[in-house]
Amino acid sequence: MKYTLMTVKAVLFGLVMSISAQEIPIYLDDSFPIEERVEDALSRLTTQEKVALLHAQSKFSSAGVARLGIPEVWMTDGPHGIRPEVLWDEWSQAEWTNDSCIAFPALTALAATWNLEMSRKYGEAIGAEARYRKKTVLLGPGVNIYRTPLNGRNFEYMGEDPFLASKMVVPYIQGVQSNGVAACVKHFAVNNQEVERGTIDVQVDERTLREIYLPAFKAAVQEGNVWAIMGAYNKFRGEHCCHNDYLLNKILREEWGFDGVVVSDWGGVHDTREAIFKGLDMEFGTWTDGLSWGASNAYANYYLAQPYLKLIKSGEVGTEELDAKARNVLRLIFRTEMDRNRPFGSFGTEEHGMIAREIAQEGIVLLKNDGNILPINPGRTNRIAVIGENAIKMMTVGGGSSSLKAKYEISPLDGLRQRLEPNVEVVYARGYVGDVGGTYNNVSTGQDLNDDRSEEELMAEAIQVAQEADYVIFIGGLNKSEHQDSEGTDRLSMDLPYNQDVLIAELAKVNANFVVVNVSGNAVTMPWINDTPAVVQSWYLGSETGTALAAILVGDVNPSGKLPFSYPVKLSDNSAHAFGEYPGSNGVVRYNEGLLVGYRWHDKMSVEPLFSFGHGLSYTTFAYGKAQLSDKTLLRDGKITCSVAITNTGDRAGSEIVQLYISDKKSSLPRPVKELKGFKKVKVEPGETVVVDFLIDVSLLQFYDDRKSQWVAESGKFDVLIGASSSDIQTTTSFTLK
Amino acid sequence: MKYTLMTVKAVLFGLVMSISAQEIPIYLDDSFPIEERVEDALSRLTTQEKVALLHAQSKFSSAGVARLGIPEVWMTDGPHGIRPEVLWDEWSQAEWTNDSCIAFPALTALAATWNLEMSRKYGEAIGAEARYRKKTVLLGPGVNIYRTPLNGRNFEYMGEDPFLASKMVVPYIQGVQSNGVAACVKHFAVNNQEVERGTIDVQVDERTLREIYLPAFKAAVQEGNVWAIMGAYNKFRGEHCCHNDYLLNKILREEWGFDGVVVSDWGGVHDTREAIFKGLDMEFGTWTDGLSWGASNAYANYYLAQPYLKLIKSGEVGTEELDAKARNVLRLIFRTEMDRNRPFGSFGTEEHGMIAREIAQEGIVLLKNDGNILPINPGRTNRIAVIGENAIKMMTVGGGSSSLKAKYEISPLDGLRQRLEPNVEVVYARGYVGDVGGTYNNVSTGQDLNDDRSEEELMAEAIQVAQEADYVIFIGGLNKSEHQDSEGTDRLSMDLPYNQDVLIAELAKVNANFVVVNVSGNAVTMPWINDTPAVVQSWYLGSETGTALAAILVGDVNPSGKLPFSYPVKLSDNSAHAFGEYPGSNGVVRYNEGLLVGYRWHDKMSVEPLFSFGHGLSYTTFAYGKAQLSDKTLLRDGKITCSVAITNTGDRAGSEIVQLYISDKKSSLPRPVKELKGFKKVKVEPGETVVVDFLIDVSLLQFYDDRKSQWVAESGKFDVLIGASSSDIQTTTSFTLK
Repeated sequence: MKYTLMTVKAVLFGLVMSISAQEIPIYLDDSFPIEERVEDALSRLTTQEKVALLHAQSKFSSAGVARLGIPEVWMTDGPHGIRPEVLWDEWSQAEWTNDSCIAFPALTALAATWNLEMSRKYGEAIGAEARYRKKTVLLGPGVNIYRTPLNGRNFEYMGEDPFLASKMVVPYIQGVQSNGVAACVKHFAVNNQEVERGTIDVQVDERTLREIYLPAFKAAVQEGNVWAIMGAYNKFRGEHCCHNDYLLNKILREEWGFDGVVVSDWGGVHDTREAIFKGLDMEFGTWTDGLSWGASNAYANYYLAQPYLKLIKSGEVGTEELDAKARNVLRLIFRTEMDRNRPFGSFGTEEHGMIAREIAQEGIVLLKNDGNILPINPGRTNRIAVIGENAIKMMTVGGGSSSLKAKYEISPLDGLRQRLEPNVEVVYARGYVGDVGGTYNNVSTGQDLNDDRSEEELMAEAIQVAQEADYVIFIGGLNKSEHQDSEGTDRLSMDLPYNQDVLIAELAKVNANFVVVNVSGNAVTMPWINDTPAVVQSWYLGSETGTALAAILVGDVNPSGKLPFSYPVKLSDNSAHAFGEYPGSNGVVRYNEGLLVGYRWHDKMSVEPLFSFGHGLSYTTFAYGKAQLSDKTLLRDGKITCSVAITNTGDRAGSEIVQLYISDKKSSLPRPVKELKGFKKVKVEPGETVVVDFLIDVSLLQFYDDRKSQWVAESGKFDVLIGASSSDIQTTTSFTLK
Repeated sequence: MKYTLMTVKAVLFGLVMSISAQEIPIYLDDSFPIEERVEDALSRLTTQEKVALLHAQSKFSSAGVARLGIPEVWMTDGPHGIRPEVLWDEWSQAEWTNDSCIAFPALTALAATWNLEMSRKYGEAIGAEARYRKKTVLLGPGVNIYRTPLNGRNFEYMGEDPFLASKMVVPYIQGVQSNGVAACVKHFAVNNQEVERGTIDVQVDERTLREIYLPAFKAAVQEGNVWAIMGAYNKFRGEHCCHNDYLLNKILREEWGFDGVVVSDWGGVHDTREAIFKGLDMEFGTWTDGLSWGASNAYANYYLAQPYLKLIKSGEVGTEELDAKARNVLRLIFRTEMDRNRPFGSFGTEEHGMIAREIAQEGIVLLKNDGNILPINPGRTNRIAVIGENAIKMMTVGGGSSSLKAKYEISPLDGLRQRLEPNVEVVYARGYVGDVGGTYNNVSTGQDLNDDRSEEELMAEAIQVAQEADYVIFIGGLNKSEHQDSEGTDRLSMDLPYNQDVLIAELAKVNANFVVVNVSGNAVTMPWINDTPAVVQSWYLGSETGTALAAILVGDVNPSGKLPFSYPVKLSDNSAHAFGEYPGSNGVVRYNEGLLVGYRWHDKMSVEPLFSFGHGLSYTTFAYGKAQLSDKTLLRDGKITCSVAITNTGDRAGSEIVQLYISDKKSSLPRPVKELKGFKKVKVEPGETVVVDFLIDVSLLQFYDDRKSQWVAESGKFDVLIGASSSDIQTTTSFTLK
């Protein structure tokens, strides 16, 4: 045997290991700024991989780049809790057992707290829930303006006022995103009715668009730094909002500098070229449903899938838009899934339940309380009659995409029983039966809820029960069924359904200690209002519904919520119905009422509402001092402070929402009588006085001058109105802008 | 209006924010050592939360602590690719479209590479796939010793030799875990047959246990630092392995210092108290199946769920074991899900495909090549006949828990066609039809594979095709059906199924250029061996099966695999069948053959195998120089080097697996004739000589002295045998241990 190199070292096969050649690429290197990482990642992608980023691969997910270790994007409804898992390409629930969430109050309830801190807690908590569930994007919050009480989806939004919504939306977004989960503000824009929502063309003048319908979105982008926005189903000026050059390219990207992703609403995309050129980034929910389409091919047929790829390959479209879209999606992924420092989240926790309760308690609005019949004094009460289906109805289920699988939901009846029994006897009568097929909370009654008694029998039982009680708490209102507070349909009238008005009127006759709790996300007519001493506006309050409501009714918690929208006496007192169009005709709806939405209409036309925007009572009373300005002159680059002292003149602690409106009577363009430009919620002990300060600068004085296409503040005199609601102005002052 | 505190600052409700009180708790603080984080987390858990960590919540997941943001644990088969998603509580696939993995070669193929670098690449790649799929634990690798060729699950393991398996398992584990994904070495222990696997009681003497059946597990724990281990289904000395005091408490924890989790095999737990006290940490797969049990309650009935909680609450058992188990699970979670620095993984990548191919190419074993009829020379070949069902059969599907949804699987026929066509005509005849219901790769033939021709017709066609070809490549062997290479059943005989022996014998008669490719994870009898010039041992090679096999057959790659188990001529030449027991009787199987497993038996009894352990040919030849020791004396705390020069005496580059055996002829207890104690795979260019060095220290000389219950190395003379297989010793030397 011979060999030539006796001393050669053994060269072990494979020892030249790939590991030695591994340097961390920039896109995986946390020490580089995100934009550099995005560019590095983008430079590594094939055209096909870029296109794959832009459309769904399942009901709620889209591809990452598995080759490069760039994670997938998983979306979740939103906005009131984390939706249960569904099957890959079907809407059916996947029947997991680890996805029962905390249901938070609907966003109307959050808006009714008028408390930024509640919004921040809400966002932090729901974001933590999304994070623990490994979701990338939470599909919320919704900030479409409340234009008509018939809109089935108002309950998911933050009321009628752009300033209130603009302020409330920001901490929610920041809270969600502090978890490394993107918020996705929706539905951009002018998605103010569900009737014909997929096709209706909204015609609204430029100034109204800017002053009423866009401010909350702008704040979400510029103050909340939201990482995603969802296009609306409807058209705006003839173009679908999910690919709308003006809204998405001009306003959102160019004017506002948005650098997140534009996500379509599910099924909101209609054309490949439109989607390419008119601002969409991510397409979801087009057609497919596993049962009918077949999962493996359907997603490839999305407008931004193979059809896009074909146009690129044929040279019919370039790749500039593709790169921009891919960049946006990559940026989203780097901000979320690839942020190594984000927290791990938490889910279904007691802490989140307590946050849900706190928000619910702050959001409930005491509309009327003649003779201070509320709160209930348990020590002086032997028997309470609870009447109405909403005392036992599960409201976290239904209503469309916001439907949840809640870890628990305490019904109003359960909440009252837990609080009052056994010292107070709580008897229940259903009084009426709503839509068949609803889901009820059987725990509270232990009875079969497929009640087939006649309307007369139910009413007779209710009246009897009411006669024999010290208090009658009627808990009714709307629910999450079609044509109530529910996605996909609008209400058919502003009246309470299921003959409740008759029942309420009858109950009011038999017991003077009569309280109506209206559960809804919308204003309802109250023909019985004069015969009813106490009315409470509850919302969809989530897991802690009953606990929160009981705490308010019994007075453990002093009500402090105020209405985020006006309560007209009747539908024709609402501007969209009085002067505008609803639901439009021939596929078009014209917002002829212009700026005069909500209280702006009531103010201007002197149409007295049933309850005003900003209205809400307390078990205590507050006295307002005189508004005082730090200076009577405001310079364009300066600011002044308006102070007002609030004194609790009652005998229990309470919180007051102090509202500041500005009125600009002389203007080159007509302006609303007044507009909300400040609010603060202050807790005041009995006898205590707290001074509330508001900063005023020029930004609060501007209007959108559609002649110049810009926001302007015109010099001159401005009135400052401070009050307890839009119709309860307590003190005024004025200053001059120079 | 009066107030008492004109200058008081506004106390804004809610401004005392929770955030100010947030300090990062220790368990979430990366700067603390894991053990401190584990203790901190443990101290925050309720008893119920601790118990929830210890059992499944779905088919493949267990709860974290959602309240505290401690993530869930998601397990995945394993060990050859990442199993597709299944429904929550059913074995049915969830029909996701993002879970098509790269199928890597079965572990027998990896073992046949004898290349640690292949093992490391395998582990890194499959770990990256698991990571991208968000899995916490990969249920593999399997290292149960090949005791009988009938074991249906041998294909998942690493052969018959404890030293080979011990070395090969370590880099796999390290590679997987470098992704922040736990490997879970299985099945601990003596799970060497599938017959009666859930109940069979294995009786094996202590020394055999220690020397043959445990070393690979010990190496996994002590060298691989594996984070999880799976208990076996069978009993060991009367106790089920999933709760076996001796194996789990005494050996694994106390002796080896294991600090990971002990996971049950799915359904391997049988008793709450046993599970509590005898070493189990995590219970999976007990009973439930959504269809029959109902998902919501079944998991609560697990032995380590409510029944455990009840025993604790009643005071019948303490919480020491609970804390220990919870600590282990928490440690697992901190090592994986909560490691912020772990990579993001990647999935289904071309790079992983190339790793799969490389391993496959290095694992294929050229068993026989008379007259060097292989490799095929495409330039001199006009037509090749490919015969046999395994040329077209999908082997990544079936076989039990290792079944995969592969992103692609190149069949042998496709691989050959891709390599040879159009210059060489490739004709195919099926020759025989295996079990009904198998899944075939229709792409290769384009024909309907529900072949209902008679056996005679199929054979006649095959013979005709064979007669008319320059080469005949028969591709048969076993498959993944029941009683073949498949979990849950053992083979019924060592013979090839489906009358292949007759077909092969007939084909051998009609064409001298005849190659048999045996696809299996087990030895098979080859009654036709003398009439067949070339035999190739293929394994289940995964996605790149056909590419790798074609590369070997055509000679693009020089074969370099060697057998990780002995190939007996007939079943009765295997020690378990000749001298031991199989499959046992009355629920007990006695390993009477003791240490004499595989080549140890053939050596001792001078039973010549068909192919020896360590055997494998090349298209080149290697000459071995003389073994040279750096010193003739080894001190107990020293080491010596044994060197041997390997020369490539052929005309093409090749890799040789040089094997070092040690023989201890004089010993106070009888020892096997020789035992593998070193191997190195070296690549050698034609005419080149490479010197291979082996380090020898006392650890390689030890045997387990069951009289003293310890490993001992007795002073005296040891022979060193170096060769190309266990029966092809090329050079020997000796030294003395002092």
